Amino acid sequence: MKVVSAIKRVPESIRNHFEQKYSQTEFIFCHGIEEAETYLSEADVFVTYGEDLNKERIQKAEHLKWIMVLSAGMDRMPFEEIEERGITVTNVRGIHARPMAEYAISMLLQVSRQAKTLIAQETKHQWDRTPVLNEINNRTMVLLGTGAIAQETARLAKAFHMKTIGVSKSGNAKPHLDETYTVEELKDVLPEADFVVAVLPSTEETRYLMNKSHFQMMKESSLFLNMGRGDLVSSTDLLEAIRNKEIAHAVLDVFEEEPLPQEHPFWEEENVTVTPHHSGISPHYVPRAFEVFDENLERYLKQEELVNLIDPKRGY
Amino acid sequence: MKVVSAIKRVPESIRNHFEQKYSQTEFIFCHGIEEAETYLSEADVFVTYGEDLNKERIQKAEHLKWIMVLSAGMDRMPFEEIEERGITVTNVRGIHARPMAEYAISMLLQVSRQAKTLIAQETKHQWDRTPVLNEINNRTMVLLGTGAIAQETARLAKAFHMKTIGVSKSGNAKPHLDETYTVEELKDVLPEADFVVAVLPSTEETRYLMNKSHFQMMKESSLFLNMGRGDLVSSTDLLEAIRNKEIAHAVLDVFEEEPLPQEHPFWEEENVTVTPHHSGISPHYVPRAFEVFDENLERYLKQEELVNLIDPKRGY
Repeated sequence: MKVVSAIKRVPESIRNHFEQKYSQTEFIFCHGIEEAETYLSEADVFVTYGEDLNKERIQKAEHLKWIMVLSAGMDRMPFEEIEERGITVTNVRGIHARPMAEYAISMLLQVSRQAKTLIAQETKHQWDRTPVLNEINNRTMVLLGTGAIAQETARLAKAFHMKTIGVSKSGNAKPHLDETYTVEELKDVLPEADFVVAVLPSTEETRYLMNKSHFQMMKESSLFLNMGRGDLVSSTDLLEAIRNKEIAHAVLDVFEEEPLPQEHPFWEEENVTVTPHHSGISPHYVPRAFEVFDENLERYLKQEELVNLIDPKRGY
Repeated sequence: MKVVSAIKRVPESIRNHFEQKYSQTEFIFCHGIEEAETYLSEADVFVTYGEDLNKERIQKAEHLKWIMVLSAGMDRMPFEEIEERGITVTNVRGIHARPMAEYAISMLLQVSRQAKTLIAQETKHQWDRTPVLNEINNRTMVLLGTGAIAQETARLAKAFHMKTIGVSKSGNAKPHLDETYTVEELKDVLPEADFVVAVLPSTEETRYLMNKSHFQMMKESSLFLNMGRGDLVSSTDLLEAIRNKEIAHAVLDVFEEEPLPQEHPFWEEENVTVTPHHSGISPHYVPRAFEVFDENLERYLKQEELVNLIDPKRGY
C-alpha cells in the first residue's frame, strides 16, 4: 500500500514514526502538490491540506481509496468526483479546539486583569497596586456555538467554576455546557452573560446574527469575544455598543474585512482588543494533525471505521 | 452574644446578612480598632485583620473567647496572651488560592502567547501573525510549595492537561499534584519543568533555597514564576540566569526589596515580567473572608469544631 503526502516540511521525527510503525506501507512525503502529482496515480491514500485537489487530479489518482485532509475546512474539495468514485474522506475536525480555547481563556484573563495597564506600568518602572484585577472564576459564559471548540472552551471555563451556556441551531445538550438553547432563545440568555464567546461558523443563519439590540440587553460589565467569523456582527453596531458603554470590552480575532485596515477605529478604541485572526494557529498543528492520521491509518489497516468521516454529499 | 468587628468599610449587604441570619447575636461593626476599642470589653467574638491586637487589648477584652482573623498572616498576633487566656483563633487560610492561581495561569499564558509583543503590534495597527503562540497545555509544572495556593494552581494546570509536580518539606502527596517530592529532591525534578511556580512561604529553610545551580539545570525554554516570597532567590542569581539564557523568562510578583526600586534592572530586562506584589489581591477578598466567618460562626453557635484553627503555640 502507498501513502502519498503533499504536506510541505513534515518533520523528520514524524516521517520516521510512520515509516517505522507501518513497515508494510510505503510512504512518499512530497513537498507540495507539484511533486506529489507524479505519484498520485500510485496512491492508495493521499494526505493533503485539502486545497490542492480538483477533478483532474482525482481522475489521475485511479487507485485512491482514502483522502486524509489535515485541515478542518473542506471548501475546495471536489466532492462530486470523490462521491462518484466512492473515495473515503476524513479530516482533523476539532484540531483548533485546544489553541482556540487557550486563546479565549487567555484573553478573558488579559482583559479582566488589566494586563495592558500593568504592562504600561512596568514600562514606566511604576509600582502601582491600584488596578483592579477582576477574577474570571464564578462568572457566566455564554458560548455562541456548541461544537468542539466551544466545548473545549467551556471545559476550561468549568475549571474556573464558571456557569456555561451554549447557543446553537438545535439547542441540543453538549458536554461541558450547563445549559443549551436555540439561536431563537439567544435574547433570553444574553442578559445573564459576563462573557459572550462567539465561535460560530459563517452560514446564512449566522451572518449578522448579532446586532445593536443584542448588545443593549447585555450587562454593562460584560465582555464580547469573537473568534468565530467576522460577519457575525457589523463593525458599526459593535463600535456603537462599545462607545455607548453598553458592554465593557470586545476582544476581536475575526473581522468583516481581514487584515483589519490600518485606519479602522477598532485599533485605537480603548475597550476593543484586536488580534490578527491567530486564535487557531498553533505550533502544535502539524504533529496534532498527523496524530489523527496515525489513529486513522491504524484503523484503516485493521479495516475498522475511521474517525472524522466526511459525508461527500454534505461536504462536512 | 456580642460580635465586635474592627474591619473597615464592611459592605451593607454583608452586615445585613449577618444581622438577619444570626438574630440572637449582637453585631457591632466598627470602622477600625480605635472605634472598636470602646466595645472590646463586651466582645465575645472579635473580627480583625490581625494587625491591631496587642497584650493590653487582649486584657481589656475580658469576655473574649474567639478571634476571627480575616487574613492569612499571623505575624503580629499577641499569641502569648491569647494562649494564656485560652482564646480560640481562626483565620482565612487559603483565601488567596483562587486569585493567586488565576495570577499564575494568566501570567503563563501572557508570556507563552507573547502578549507584550501582540499588544505592541496593536498599538502600531500592525496585522502580523508571525509571533508564535505557544500553548500551555501538556506542559510540566513544578510547584515549590504544596499548600492551598499550590493545589489550586495545580488544579487549574490539570485542566490544561499539565503534569504537576509538587515540592515541599515533607514531600507528602497532595490533591491535584501528580507527584510530590521533598526539598532535598528539588534538583531531581527541576530538569523536567517547563514552568516552575514558587509559592513557598519565607522560613529559615526556604530563604535563598534556589541559586545559580538550580537555574543551570532547568530547560532553556523554561519559565520561572515567583509569587511566594522575594527571598527565595537572590536577584543577582536570577538576573544572571536570565542574561545567560539558562531559562527563557521570569515572572516576578515578589522581590527581595519591595516596592522594587525604580532603577532595578528587572524592570528593563526583556525576559523578566514584573508585577507589583498583587497576585493575592482580589476584589472578592472581603466577601470571601466573611464567608469563612459565616461558616465558623454557624459552627461556633452549634458548638462544633471551627475550621482554620490556629495553634497559638506555633502561630499557624
